[in-house]
Amino acid sequence: MTTRIDLNRLAPEPGRLSRRLDELAAFHDPEHPGWSREVFSEPYRASRAWVRAQMTEAGLETVVDPAGNIIGRLPGKDPSAPALVTGSHTDTVRQGGRFDGIVGVLGGIEVAQRLRETGTRLERDLLVVDFLGEEANEFGISCIGSRSIAGILAPEHLERTDGTGTRLGDAMERFGLAPQAALSSGWRTKDVHAYVELHVEQGPLLERSGHGIGVVSAIAGIDRLLVHFAGQTGHSGTTPMEDRHDALVSAAAAVLTVERAGCGAPVHGVATLGSIDSSPRSMGVITDQARLWAEIRSIDGNWLRATQKQIVGEIAAEAQQRGVDVDFEWLTDQDPVPTHELVQDVIAEAAGGLGLGWKAVPSGAGHDAAHLARLGPMGMVFVPSAGGRSHCPEELTEVADIARGAHVLAATLVGLDGREQPASIQ
Amino acid sequence: MTTRIDLNRLAPEPGRLSRRLDELAAFHDPEHPGWSREVFSEPYRASRAWVRAQMTEAGLETVVDPAGNIIGRLPGKDPSAPALVTGSHTDTVRQGGRFDGIVGVLGGIEVAQRLRETGTRLERDLLVVDFLGEEANEFGISCIGSRSIAGILAPEHLERTDGTGTRLGDAMERFGLAPQAALSSGWRTKDVHAYVELHVEQGPLLERSGHGIGVVSAIAGIDRLLVHFAGQTGHSGTTPMEDRHDALVSAAAAVLTVERAGCGAPVHGVATLGSIDSSPRSMGVITDQARLWAEIRSIDGNWLRATQKQIVGEIAAEAQQRGVDVDFEWLTDQDPVPTHELVQDVIAEAAGGLGLGWKAVPSGAGHDAAHLARLGPMGMVFVPSAGGRSHCPEELTEVADIARGAHVLAATLVGLDGREQPASIQ
Repeated sequence: MTTRIDLNRLAPEPGRLSRRLDELAAFHDPEHPGWSREVFSEPYRASRAWVRAQMTEAGLETVVDPAGNIIGRLPGKDPSAPALVTGSHTDTVRQGGRFDGIVGVLGGIEVAQRLRETGTRLERDLLVVDFLGEEANEFGISCIGSRSIAGILAPEHLERTDGTGTRLGDAMERFGLAPQAALSSGWRTKDVHAYVELHVEQGPLLERSGHGIGVVSAIAGIDRLLVHFAGQTGHSGTTPMEDRHDALVSAAAAVLTVERAGCGAPVHGVATLGSIDSSPRSMGVITDQARLWAEIRSIDGNWLRATQKQIVGEIAAEAQQRGVDVDFEWLTDQDPVPTHELVQDVIAEAAGGLGLGWKAVPSGAGHDAAHLARLGPMGMVFVPSAGGRSHCPEELTEVADIARGAHVLAATLVGLDGREQPASIQ
Repeated sequence: MTTRIDLNRLAPEPGRLSRRLDELAAFHDPEHPGWSREVFSEPYRASRAWVRAQMTEAGLETVVDPAGNIIGRLPGKDPSAPALVTGSHTDTVRQGGRFDGIVGVLGGIEVAQRLRETGTRLERDLLVVDFLGEEANEFGISCIGSRSIAGILAPEHLERTDGTGTRLGDAMERFGLAPQAALSSGWRTKDVHAYVELHVEQGPLLERSGHGIGVVSAIAGIDRLLVHFAGQTGHSGTTPMEDRHDALVSAAAAVLTVERAGCGAPVHGVATLGSIDSSPRSMGVITDQARLWAEIRSIDGNWLRATQKQIVGEIAAEAQQRGVDVDFEWLTDQDPVPTHELVQDVIAEAAGGLGLGWKAVPSGAGHDAAHLARLGPMGMVFVPSAGGRSHCPEELTEVADIARGAHVLAATLVGLDGREQPASIQ
């Protein structure tokens, strides 16, 4: 039935897409460089009213769920059938870029608008979701909205606190959300036919290979680490070097250990330092307390497990030599999640059908899609990032590339609309 | 004439000394561990009224000079003769200890009080000084009071700012001082016959060798370093390790470079890290900006100069390999200052005369004495620090050791009172 749809007619309007990208990026905190629209911030609050208005303008029925997800619905022929779902997020990291996240939300809105404008009626409802708070934040919990929809937002998450001691639950309430209800507002697997997310690659692979479309093979797992170092203070001028137990020096050695672990990774694996805190911070006093935040990422769960052990062993051995006590806290933020073969195939066919070259790429970044994979077949469409830069003000993807990605998203959704779910889904 | 003085009668009253040590230590900021009485803090302000009252109780005439130095005077037979000067400071580092500084002020007051109580009239005036703000502070200027007395407090010092952007000059005014007048209230060399300071060693040498008295040979020079690292941000999950220019990793490597420089030092030389700041501090973003504070100390100026070059060369080479830009700011806080041979001799004779063993030791810490050396022959008496610990809550010197040190101080001042200044003074 969907075979009769003329996919070329679904091409996005680049001018409208470009205008929306500019308008949404204009909501940002001027106190930080780049485009900062952090979760629960005032610019984020303001931008969300704008997002909802754009969904309405596109002809979608909108609701905001207890977790703050903005959901726009384009009704299909059979409202009782499992829905097609697309979307992404509109929050940013501090000092972030203009395209991470918003491309998937605005691309999804554009796809829905083109479907409506061209009178293309899908069998199923299409849901376009702006998931709340996808980026890592001070509460240490990314993907707040998509975790809620996936049914894995847990009471302990609401108890986590930011730097000021505010609970996530309280921050959500102050933002007008319903955190308790968000714990039990997960969707059922029978609600979702498939999930496809359009996103900028945020890495250099597509640009380097000259492909305009990336078909994501897997989303990397993320393990986060907090190491506490406890040494001994003392006077900086009078304590002999051999008598010292300097927590900051151990933390610095640990930075290099973490970096080495990343540099020794196989095909995909990276290790990154967050920051070092230490006290006392006086130059006249040897540091006795230091904390180091770091993370490792890979699409290979075995590499993540082995690298955790390697990092712990090497940091502990160095600190022991120095007479510094160490304590490790690991937090698995996300296990690696492969995309579904069905969705990979349909994206590749959609790109091919539109005459666009594509390449299979891993996603080093986490995405809402990783959580939506619990509800049905999941896949992602990547578009190139200039210089591979992301999470920084220089982040850039050309509107033409975004429009091509949105066109592939449209064709993919149409393609999935006509497919049965495979018997064994994730 | 002073040969007739019975030095044994000048022995301090340990009970009074102990009470004053306890009472002064009780003035501290309860918001920090240990004994925090930082310059310009409220506990410091309150403690200074107490110090002045103790001087009065001891029979001293007191004044506070424009820089905030509290000066107590015990008149001698000839008020026109150059004065004997002793003293130290009563401010602490944050999270500091109970003895650093206050031992020299309270010891000096006790010596003056015993001289008065025993009717021991010196030829010269004895000045006991509580110098303002000796410790390193957020303005990056230690020894504010003794610099003013030495005539080297400069207009640029008043322009330095703390973490909140407050000028030192404004902080002094708010504390009731007269910063402009402090620039020109230096003493003349003919005002000072000699300067002797009693202080805790803050290091382990006396305790390890079993000597109760240290005769300080020299005060270490201090060179302070701020390194700026400028790399490139990027997404922590998607930027290949080999494409990174991580400022925090370069800063960590620099920490180890600085430590190696200290560990390779000759007899006396140490290198200490202050802290690392970095931004952005998000785990999802590669660090592009980092700052590292560090210092090196030695009584050997040649070692300091060579080590500066070594540190700069090694940090710059590492950062260049990583594609991170570096910028160095060196600040010589203090050149190495030898103590005067005359004062060394008189301290050693005084200790010997009281039947106390002594050892020549370097001072790794800076002291007000280093600035007073500009005005006349300078020396220092050290007493042991338990475990060599200082600038930390565990800092401990037994009252009996402090009393022995104060007794040696008394005998030294009596000895210097009867000596002529050598023809060539510093």
